[in-house]
Amino acid sequence: MITLAVDCMGGDHGPRVTLPACRHFLDRYPDAALLLVGLPASLAEFAHPRATVVVASEVVGMDDSIEIALRKKKDSSMRVAISQVKQGTAQAAVSAGNTGALMAIARYLLKTLDGIDRPAIAGQIPNAKGGATTVLDLGANVDCTAEHLLQFAVMGSALVSVLSDNENPTVGLLNIGEEAIKGNETIKRSGELLRAAAQAGDLNFYGNVEGNDIFVGTTDIVVCDGFVGNVALKTSEGLASMIVNFLRVEFSRNLFTKFAAILSYPVLTALKKRMDHRRYNGAALLGLRGLVFKSHGSADAFAFEQALHRAYDAARNNLLDRVQARIAHAAPLLAVPADYALDTTAPMSA
Amino acid sequence: MITLAVDCMGGDHGPRVTLPACRHFLDRYPDAALLLVGLPASLAEFAHPRATVVVASEVVGMDDSIEIALRKKKDSSMRVAISQVKQGTAQAAVSAGNTGALMAIARYLLKTLDGIDRPAIAGQIPNAKGGATTVLDLGANVDCTAEHLLQFAVMGSALVSVLSDNENPTVGLLNIGEEAIKGNETIKRSGELLRAAAQAGDLNFYGNVEGNDIFVGTTDIVVCDGFVGNVALKTSEGLASMIVNFLRVEFSRNLFTKFAAILSYPVLTALKKRMDHRRYNGAALLGLRGLVFKSHGSADAFAFEQALHRAYDAARNNLLDRVQARIAHAAPLLAVPADYALDTTAPMSA
Repeated sequence: MITLAVDCMGGDHGPRVTLPACRHFLDRYPDAALLLVGLPASLAEFAHPRATVVVASEVVGMDDSIEIALRKKKDSSMRVAISQVKQGTAQAAVSAGNTGALMAIARYLLKTLDGIDRPAIAGQIPNAKGGATTVLDLGANVDCTAEHLLQFAVMGSALVSVLSDNENPTVGLLNIGEEAIKGNETIKRSGELLRAAAQAGDLNFYGNVEGNDIFVGTTDIVVCDGFVGNVALKTSEGLASMIVNFLRVEFSRNLFTKFAAILSYPVLTALKKRMDHRRYNGAALLGLRGLVFKSHGSADAFAFEQALHRAYDAARNNLLDRVQARIAHAAPLLAVPADYALDTTAPMSA
Repeated sequence: MITLAVDCMGGDHGPRVTLPACRHFLDRYPDAALLLVGLPASLAEFAHPRATVVVASEVVGMDDSIEIALRKKKDSSMRVAISQVKQGTAQAAVSAGNTGALMAIARYLLKTLDGIDRPAIAGQIPNAKGGATTVLDLGANVDCTAEHLLQFAVMGSALVSVLSDNENPTVGLLNIGEEAIKGNETIKRSGELLRAAAQAGDLNFYGNVEGNDIFVGTTDIVVCDGFVGNVALKTSEGLASMIVNFLRVEFSRNLFTKFAAILSYPVLTALKKRMDHRRYNGAALLGLRGLVFKSHGSADAFAFEQALHRAYDAARNNLLDRVQARIAHAAPLLAVPADYALDTTAPMSA
């Protein structure tokens, strides 16, 4: 039995979205159980033999500061859900709440794995190969050192090897050119560390990749700092929305184009499905001593259920143990001498 | 008469693309003259009353290092073209050559304007409003301080106000959230400097924007460091290519979809036109004591001609003087005390 703790109050829609997703998920996975965490009144009507309500008296708002979420709302549904993972009553927690608060609470309660300074958010972006490219970090860390990027690469490799049949996934370092001399000092140092890790057999490092490679699917994993990853993700979402809206407007321009739209229905449906980021909802918070998955705040029931699936897959496949094993194997590389670590960031302040 | 110096040898295709573009451009603008810079043998057959060949004996390769381009090839077509601007024989130079080399040579020959530490590359990205968002920097500077971002904002505002009818264009600071507390230390400081500039009446600062806002068209200008800007640009190009290819494949799947494609022709043509980055080809190198425009290396004749148009518009509208005037006006803000400037970058090394 795989048990997930679900923060039913999180996200833009709360129980209205999370509860239908939970019910559908339970119907689909007979070996899954859910701990539904939230205000009792909101969850009172949900009954299922494999669902248990766990009461929380507070809710972290989408606009709450990390300070408020962490220090003031100690009985929030988000925190209680993560506590279930810490206590071992659930194998993973899922929340659609405020990312900053989720990361802070998860880090505070669960702590990071040995060898990992900072957790990262790993998400999937659909690519031209019909699969998805795993990109991390998507926004947890706005300033990263070369060592952090190496840690992200190790964690991302573990994630992809666990959740797909690909034992040795390729890693690309997001840069502004393919040549090793490109990029800022942090990126160049990251390239050196990643090449060293590849030589030691800890990583399948492809080399530098550029923004377009995320969609080409050049590598299974793309590593970048959270600022860059977040901008890349949101820029893509913006362009995708623009194109979908453009097609909607143009195809409804007149009777002729409306007829064309009807005939183009199979193509447009396939495009819509390919561009549907709901299918890829559920980003892993990697590097913690416990599994936590983040759903998009605006997720609908279909999207939220994908996040539940992802958490279930990760728990069933022992993602945590396997990430830990990968990190332990790469430990000599991750343990960079302090003076070297300092040195790598020095040029940033020049 | 507006005279442009054209590096006819630059880009992936050289004279095969640049010469037809030059001819078409000359036919369209009766008050324009061109200095065609390149190897005599390559330009021998081009004759036009308003075109003059300027001989250069070398060509900067797309893979040449900045060192080679700057120190070894002193008679390159790229350098000779920029020299025309320095000497005053041309009002602007246009090249499709290697970006790093172009920036280095332009900076070496022309020098930066007072108050500007680093030139930036400003390009246009089509937005949902039917216009284009001007984004800078697109890759000239991989590490930027808050002061650099302020300089980019001032230069970008001058560019847009000169090349459009918008006297007071809005500026957004690319960030990972709208709130002023978001982002790394450099971005937060940039926000402070931009707000101060807005209060002094030197800028129309909107506030933070996110990646999707580039395509929404939330602001006329989006300011970011060159690493982030380059990733955002290439990520968008990758997604756009994926969608266009997807539609091509899906619409040619069978007789029925081929028929749908024929009926959808007006819509697909409109989409292709909207997504056609050739129309927006020609990025300005801002902050130099002379006008230089960079065409995409893979530009075809249509795209290269757009870069010529852009350079012509900039020259005719006295972009250089107007950028200079804006910078002079904002000089008290740009002249940040040295210790304060140091302080702003300090947290980056923490």
